[in-house]
Amino acid sequence: MKLYCFGESGNSYKAALTLELAGVGWEPVFVDFFKGEARSPEYLAINPMGEVPLLVNGDITLSQSGAIQDYIAELTGRFGGKTSDERREILRWVFWDNHKLSSQAGMTRFLMNFLPEDKRPAEVIAFMQGRLKGVYATLNTALEGRDWLVGDEITNADISCCGYLYYPEPFGFERKDYPNIDAWLDRIADQPGWKHPYDLMPGSPADRA
Amino acid sequence: MKLYCFGESGNSYKAALTLELAGVGWEPVFVDFFKGEARSPEYLAINPMGEVPLLVNGDITLSQSGAIQDYIAELTGRFGGKTSDERREILRWVFWDNHKLSSQAGMTRFLMNFLPEDKRPAEVIAFMQGRLKGVYATLNTALEGRDWLVGDEITNADISCCGYLYYPEPFGFERKDYPNIDAWLDRIADQPGWKHPYDLMPGSPADRA
Repeated sequence: MKLYCFGESGNSYKAALTLELAGVGWEPVFVDFFKGEARSPEYLAINPMGEVPLLVNGDITLSQSGAIQDYIAELTGRFGGKTSDERREILRWVFWDNHKLSSQAGMTRFLMNFLPEDKRPAEVIAFMQGRLKGVYATLNTALEGRDWLVGDEITNADISCCGYLYYPEPFGFERKDYPNIDAWLDRIADQPGWKHPYDLMPGSPADRA
Repeated sequence: MKLYCFGESGNSYKAALTLELAGVGWEPVFVDFFKGEARSPEYLAINPMGEVPLLVNGDITLSQSGAIQDYIAELTGRFGGKTSDERREILRWVFWDNHKLSSQAGMTRFLMNFLPEDKRPAEVIAFMQGRLKGVYATLNTALEGRDWLVGDEITNADISCCGYLYYPEPFGFERKDYPNIDAWLDRIADQPGWKHPYDLMPGSPADRA
């Protein structure tokens, strides 16, 4: 399997980490997003919507990290839940993450770190940071007294929600403000095979320095 | 089945329209979101995250419209695709919608219409409208030469992506600018049982006037 990805992309990280923790053989293909490669004719020939990450497995080409996670769960029997109740609850969290957490955290991190300083929209950043406080608080509360979001082991719910939370670039999220999230990120990082996004995928700010 | 919902919520509409078009017997329970009812102790006792919509069917309580749509597809065999390829592609579109379209369109519409005029953040609204232009264009392109997003009949992909696009309140989306979306919205509205959000669910700006 090939995963078109780049290190700075938390959405790529969710797919890459699911593959890695599931023990699936996979190979990253670097998409130089910041040089516009996701909009190149070569890339658009593979995925007309220009999305990253993109999983290619034989005839199957799949984008959207949540759909890729679901596919890996189906293939490997890992991280998708042990019962229908768990399966539904995992899907609910992955949607929650895509809808509320990663979409907004990813955008805010992009605006604060990867745009030229004179192009960073201060009012938008402040607004998004305010909204995200409620989102982090929801996640922190859900983890109260629990090791994992659903059931008694790590699932796609955890792997989705942590997608942007290991990155060092500032975007308004501080682990120490959310002790349950902080401890849960350590638990995820203790899983056999876990790697930091910049170690798991090609491309990082250090490469561009 | 009961669906906790309110008319102004496009996320509620996706769940309600899926139930209605699938021919499932369901009953709306009005959540007076604008009076803070989603944060009331009574509502939080049912769903600690205060989310709307929320489906209750016997022992099962489920939030996130995408997870509710998946559950209805599982129960009824409707709108979830006829093959694994279709199923994956539908899930991909429902994630895309939650990640890129409804989350951002819903927020922009809220900021432009349901906040007091002196509280509307102009820079945020302009920024979101700019981002959304690319999102509408992606949807319009995907519908080129096709009746439906996936396969040859309406699926959860269509029902998810249309969630905010029938509302009359301005948020920067004009059907006439996107002819493929415009024709597709008419096709969805021609489905037996289709209703406009303000006819399908309780609560609308007219009720509050």
